[in-house]
Amino acid sequence: MNPEYEAYCDLMRRVADVGYAGDLLQWDQEVYMPEGGGKFRARQLATLAGIRHEMGTSDELGSLLNQLKGDTALSDTAQKNIRESLRKYDEQKKYPNAFVVTMQDTVSRSFEAWQRARRANDFALFRPMLEKLVELKQEEAQLLGYEDHPYDALLNLYEPGATKKELDAMFGRIKSELVPYAKQLAGLPAPDTSFLARNYPRNHQWEFGLYLLERMHYDFTRGRQDISAHPFTTNFSPDDVRITTRIREDDFREMTWSTIHECGHALYEQGLPADMYGLPAGEFASLGIHESQSRLWENHVGRSRAFWTFHFPVLKEKFPENLGTVTSEEFFRAINAVRPSLIRTNADEVTYHLHILIRFEIECGLVNGQIRVGDLPAVWKEKYQAYLGLVVPDDAQGVLQDVHWSHGAFGYFPTYTLGSIYAAQFYTCAAEQTGGIESDMENGQTERLWHWLRAQIYAHGRTLSPGELCRQATGRTLDFSTFMKYIISKYGNVYGIS
Amino acid sequence: MNPEYEAYCDLMRRVADVGYAGDLLQWDQEVYMPEGGGKFRARQLATLAGIRHEMGTSDELGSLLNQLKGDTALSDTAQKNIRESLRKYDEQKKYPNAFVVTMQDTVSRSFEAWQRARRANDFALFRPMLEKLVELKQEEAQLLGYEDHPYDALLNLYEPGATKKELDAMFGRIKSELVPYAKQLAGLPAPDTSFLARNYPRNHQWEFGLYLLERMHYDFTRGRQDISAHPFTTNFSPDDVRITTRIREDDFREMTWSTIHECGHALYEQGLPADMYGLPAGEFASLGIHESQSRLWENHVGRSRAFWTFHFPVLKEKFPENLGTVTSEEFFRAINAVRPSLIRTNADEVTYHLHILIRFEIECGLVNGQIRVGDLPAVWKEKYQAYLGLVVPDDAQGVLQDVHWSHGAFGYFPTYTLGSIYAAQFYTCAAEQTGGIESDMENGQTERLWHWLRAQIYAHGRTLSPGELCRQATGRTLDFSTFMKYIISKYGNVYGIS
Repeated sequence: MNPEYEAYCDLMRRVADVGYAGDLLQWDQEVYMPEGGGKFRARQLATLAGIRHEMGTSDELGSLLNQLKGDTALSDTAQKNIRESLRKYDEQKKYPNAFVVTMQDTVSRSFEAWQRARRANDFALFRPMLEKLVELKQEEAQLLGYEDHPYDALLNLYEPGATKKELDAMFGRIKSELVPYAKQLAGLPAPDTSFLARNYPRNHQWEFGLYLLERMHYDFTRGRQDISAHPFTTNFSPDDVRITTRIREDDFREMTWSTIHECGHALYEQGLPADMYGLPAGEFASLGIHESQSRLWENHVGRSRAFWTFHFPVLKEKFPENLGTVTSEEFFRAINAVRPSLIRTNADEVTYHLHILIRFEIECGLVNGQIRVGDLPAVWKEKYQAYLGLVVPDDAQGVLQDVHWSHGAFGYFPTYTLGSIYAAQFYTCAAEQTGGIESDMENGQTERLWHWLRAQIYAHGRTLSPGELCRQATGRTLDFSTFMKYIISKYGNVYGIS
Repeated sequence: MNPEYEAYCDLMRRVADVGYAGDLLQWDQEVYMPEGGGKFRARQLATLAGIRHEMGTSDELGSLLNQLKGDTALSDTAQKNIRESLRKYDEQKKYPNAFVVTMQDTVSRSFEAWQRARRANDFALFRPMLEKLVELKQEEAQLLGYEDHPYDALLNLYEPGATKKELDAMFGRIKSELVPYAKQLAGLPAPDTSFLARNYPRNHQWEFGLYLLERMHYDFTRGRQDISAHPFTTNFSPDDVRITTRIREDDFREMTWSTIHECGHALYEQGLPADMYGLPAGEFASLGIHESQSRLWENHVGRSRAFWTFHFPVLKEKFPENLGTVTSEEFFRAINAVRPSLIRTNADEVTYHLHILIRFEIECGLVNGQIRVGDLPAVWKEKYQAYLGLVVPDDAQGVLQDVHWSHGAFGYFPTYTLGSIYAAQFYTCAAEQTGGIESDMENGQTERLWHWLRAQIYAHGRTLSPGELCRQATGRTLDFSTFMKYIISKYGNVYGIS
């Protein structure tokens, strides 16, 4: 083996070791850390992040990458690893140290300011820090460089190769097709959802969640589930992929679909090639692709009639008092009720993307200076009125609801919608290519779908761009129409319209 | 503040951050990690250990320490920090890189060999690796240097300032006083212990353990208890100190005294000065002192008549079927039954030190070449016959029972006995100095004792050597007589002899 390539692999894997150690510290903080542990944990995380950054931007790594770049004697995968690592390396090297320090400091103060502002329901407490952040993100876009629009530079941090231009087209269709469709559904009689909000005892919910995870082939020998305030998936290698959930006794939807969603993320991580640990070929392709995996399972599988044909009887047996008289069809309609809401994280599969549309429009406006931070509360209210038909009563339920901007994450929100669009295309294509996915589900089986995802998505790691991955797996570029067709067909069915 | 001292503190704290991160990875591995996670976890731990070693032996740290050494303008504590850090630094610098690599490799292969040998009950499988390890430890003693005996060099890694000469004296008295005393007790009618081995349901034991921890002032806002195969205490700062226990339903001693023991360790760590995080003044004094804290609580408190005067009625209420007819006095005698046994970790407070005596004699012999590895099984059997009067049936229950040597830990075992001797002296002195500790305990209170330990032991971190700490706290050097007096008085009482 090429000794420089070996040295590169070794260095990358050590960088990964440090990164994953930090991830475990974070997992622990969310799940088991005693309340007093926070102060020293923060500095431990900062130290590890600093070491990781230093290793990942070291001259040693840079020189190895530049030696190996374009070496056609390397295997195809090795060449792809080098290409992607060099891209990341060059990206990281564009940040002057002073900028990194200022950004870290601003982010940690912004996060605190946002927490205070949200608690106090007072946007003014967040505004100065957000203004500073927006300025820094504008500067960051300049540092990173871009062809068309500064937003592209920020977006690419999460979704390599994506452009504002493509997103404009996608959100254009959301505006012209999904917004009116959601309005149409809102005008129809709503499915009865009352039985979902009865008392569902905690321990029975927990058991049912474990049952679903087993059925979905989540590998408990290489993972575990715990409880946390906000459900998430994390991993420390493909052989240790953990998920969390939360349980509300007065509404079993919370646990059920967060579990299915996180399981989708986890199957992806558990399916990445372990021999590529620490290298791009062992990493997820992009946030959009990651989200496509969680949403595919959550919505296309976990909110389908076929899936519950098999599992609803099991659920019913667990909660006979709550669901004894409910039919499988009533259940299917209830879990797919569409209803405009103020809070993004509570939104259904249809109106969810209206929340993202609003954030995307605002982010673009902030980055190019057309929207001013001071105007945000008003802009927010206008857009919620226009797209969702809702009156936003206050900023806590409005512009202050999401943590993302306070973390300096601009360009992140669109990956949620990209995830859904990818999910629809992957699922539709898997169903066409393999046949029988739906009847499998009616029998409680999901292997066929899972194997398709392993081969078409998981196995490639980050050796393909999201766009390439999509073309290779589905034979087509990403197309909003497939998503829209899925929505119209499914909700036509749920609401009895055609 | 002195800018070099500040730079020293900053660097030391970052070294600590990395070390504690590794400790969390280890805690997780023992407590929650899924079985598949081991492979990558091992390399993550190795990477962090390497980074920590690099930082802790960096020229940057060396040059700061040498600049600050002997700077009398520094505060007293600062000077002590520098002195101890320099000692550690110089110690670490004595190891050539090649030696460190060989040792790590040998240890990891030895540990595997030991596991195989123990499973197969076949010392021959461990012998070659143990021979290699003994050679390396002999070399290590030469690298580290010593005045009298190579064993001193190894011992000092765990117990700064301790010498073989002192230990010879201590174990000499164990041989001449404790060995015959244990034999005498073995000849007397044994207390009835049958009621300790009835069925004690898991969840009730867990609750009783939490109750004891609360009463002992373990701070749950800065710690937590979990289950693991072998009970241990670990910490990631003084504000996050965790303990583990294990539960046997057929014997509630396991959970109860491991919980009290680990709580003793944890109170020490929770009591170290948080503003000294990462510096010697914020660290435990030595392994012997650490063990003194666990044993003081386990034996002097947790196996005392006074302690159970208060807590036995509570225990009885939890397990009325098992203990309803047992008197407090019968209980006290039962939990202090003395009985020679083959396995160190199951030993009572008296015969425990006979196990350590044997290991100490063997270690000294191995290090100076008077005992050969090949003779170990026979030597082991002879000594168990001579000191404990027991026939060792096989090596799994003999020379293969402890993990320590396979980890390369020679000179570690004596700190267990040192811990008991220190514990007796600390407890006796605290009782004399404060008065009322025993009557406090009869009322379920331990604040007075705990406050004495906070002031006399915890507060000093590693600013004093174990010997200095002992003299300052108790006014005397460590004296075996106090321990022996305690043993004779307590067991005279238990066994009704004088």
